[in-house]
Amino acid sequence: MRVLGVDPGLTRCGVGVVEGLPGRTCRLIGFEVVCSDPAADLAQRLLALDIALTDFVTRYSPDAVAVERVFSQHNVRTVMGTAQAGAIALLAAARAGLPVQMYTPSEVKAAVTGSGQADKAQVTAMVTRLLRLDAPPRPADAADALALAICHVWRGAARARLATAAGPQRATDGYRK
Amino acid sequence: MRVLGVDPGLTRCGVGVVEGLPGRTCRLIGFEVVCSDPAADLAQRLLALDIALTDFVTRYSPDAVAVERVFSQHNVRTVMGTAQAGAIALLAAARAGLPVQMYTPSEVKAAVTGSGQADKAQVTAMVTRLLRLDAPPRPADAADALALAICHVWRGAARARLATAAGPQRATDGYRK
Repeated sequence: MRVLGVDPGLTRCGVGVVEGLPGRTCRLIGFEVVCSDPAADLAQRLLALDIALTDFVTRYSPDAVAVERVFSQHNVRTVMGTAQAGAIALLAAARAGLPVQMYTPSEVKAAVTGSGQADKAQVTAMVTRLLRLDAPPRPADAADALALAICHVWRGAARARLATAAGPQRATDGYRK
Repeated sequence: MRVLGVDPGLTRCGVGVVEGLPGRTCRLIGFEVVCSDPAADLAQRLLALDIALTDFVTRYSPDAVAVERVFSQHNVRTVMGTAQAGAIALLAAARAGLPVQMYTPSEVKAAVTGSGQADKAQVTAMVTRLLRLDAPPRPADAADALALAICHVWRGAARARLATAAGPQRATDGYRK
């Protein structure tokens, strides 16, 4: 199973692809950080992100997409850009007909480090170890995207089964108007 | 000048098109409210909105797009969906190569009613009067979208000149990561 993880952000959006099976070692396929200028026009920044993500999806042909779930408790100014970048990521996945799963930062941290309270350095260290890389992926947004992808490889299959058993998928909490 | 106004929302997204010139009467071209089921998958909802907005842009060929600027002070849960729907609207405009301008709710209210503190009923009443309609457009999301479009017809040209004079357009405040 090949999974694309997206750590959404307007200024820096981390994307990473891994391949693996639940309970087995994952393999790094590729990663990238899509950047945009905070001083540029918002619509143009979203368009550039859409083009980059669509290109990434085409290039790596993932089977599924994992996107970080944005929480409203955080800094509200930051959350706005993250929510908008996340919307573009979800749209790119849906347009490609790919299943999308969202994970909270704690779920991702717990999946790769064993603790939902792990810090960024710990996540990066574990991603480096789990993917058997010689050096940590840089910048950190890429490591977070890879952690999301690993999290989905390991937990996604079980979650999808649970969701199917529970009825219509309601992965949209916190996003409703 | 033909302007498409978008009142972004995930569950209900108002879109309306008017034609006019600064200081002159505007003419209604069309409006619609794009709805999606809050219980549906978020990625699918965003995709449906993207398809509907793209279709609306193609059908009405506006010269410019006006989108309501989302503010973070409001109910944060609502803001997330609004920010995401807004991102899809901005993307649809940018993809069509159309200039986009954002307006705060107060700017729109002030433009059509003379008061930035006007309520929804007052905005709807003025939109009905300004466009010389026999009955108010329903639901209210459509009236808000038409108010945005009228606001841009009347204020947009002046704003665009100011922005050009002031250097690179910085219409992204409040959206930066």
